[in-house]
Amino acid sequence: MKSFRQELTFNLPARMEFINITPEVEHAVQASGVQEGLCLVNAMHITASVFINDDESGLHADYKKWLEGLAPFDASPQRYAHNRTGEDNADAHMKRQIMGREVVVAITAGKLDFGTWEQIFYGEFDGRRPKRVLVKVIGE
Amino acid sequence: MKSFRQELTFNLPARMEFINITPEVEHAVQASGVQEGLCLVNAMHITASVFINDDESGLHADYKKWLEGLAPFDASPQRYAHNRTGEDNADAHMKRQIMGREVVVAITAGKLDFGTWEQIFYGEFDGRRPKRVLVKVIGE
Amino acid sequence: MKSFRQELTFNLPARMEFINITPEVEHAVQASGVQEGLCLVNAMHITASVFINDDESGLHADYKKWLEGLAPFDASPQRYAHNRTGEDNADAHMKRQIMGREVVVAITAGKLDFGTWEQIFYGEFDGRRPKRVLVKVIGE
Repeated sequence: MKSFRQELTFNLPARMEFINITPEVEHAVQASGVQEGLCLVNAMHITASVFINDDESGLHADYKKWLEGLAPFDASPQRYAHNRTGEDNADAHMKRQIMGREVVVAITAGKLDFGTWEQIFYGEFDGRRPKRVLVKVIGE
Repeated sequence: MKSFRQELTFNLPARMEFINITPEVEHAVQASGVQEGLCLVNAMHITASVFINDDESGLHADYKKWLEGLAPFDASPQRYAHNRTGEDNADAHMKRQIMGREVVVAITAGKLDFGTWEQIFYGEFDGRRPKRVLVKVIGE
Repeated sequence: MKSFRQELTFNLPARMEFINITPEVEHAVQASGVQEGLCLVNAMHITASVFINDDESGLHADYKKWLEGLAPFDASPQRYAHNRTGEDNADAHMKRQIMGREVVVAITAGKLDFGTWEQIFYGEFDGRRPKRVLVKVIGE
């Protein structure tokens, strides 16, 4: 069994933003030399997500508006108990639970085994600083 | 290490519907010959889910109503920017994020290692056409 | 390839509660002898979650309030069809979908490969009875 590990680092200029990291993950899969296996991609931070969906800017705008409705940003200590600790990012912890921490993708014949429109995104909910994503590949 | 791959195709007659795909996944696990390992089951489409929950029709009706409340269908271009591209399924992309893209299930002694009530479902949010689910098994 | 399986049992005194199970999972990883691989941790019950987030009591209070807002407990048969079957836990099935069934964590150099603040939690939404979590490790 082969295994391979790589960290990717992203520093997004906005508080909430999504970026397509499929090329970076494809590169890691190639570097792993794994032909058949599984690829785990996870945010290493608890106010960020890795998810698979469509690379369409309108949809991304919809996600932001929708997540803001479900878990509004509110730095005050009134709405969120977490923000009484000096943090202002309680909402980011909730947005991340909706969008998910990780994806597991099959590797078949040395490639990410995707449907037509599947693309991997890093979802940032408390940005403006460097944050890490882990890619772990196992297989043969 | 063994690996095995199978695609399942579903064509559900409703826009939103859930079906129990546990028998199909069990069949794939048997065909893989894997005794100890992991089984990834994921929707290959970005407006569909694979999730594990209870096979109870009342609960499924509750999920539909609940998801419709959280992310209402609205084909107009007003609510969702995605629907200005000619699509009408922005809501389906959101419902899918709540219910999840994939499940990873342990394989122990050649079987899906489940709790008493765990069953695997395909969740369709933009149906009435053939859509695919990937089953990937790795192990020994 | 090595594989290892362990069940953890939790009996939480409240209906909804979160507990940090990272030490138990670390112990399982050590017992597995796996140096490089993947660790699946999943609830074996469909009204419970396993998720990764921050071990901060204010945040946990926020999650409870937020989940209660998204999917309120209501034992009556009016709101949830599932509760016409004699159950009272339809809300718990929904809360579990938001928080997720499972996490997959990389194992690197014999340890859970975590970011600084990542901790694994068991999330209970219908407690006051013994319930199980599965830890499955594969790798080498």
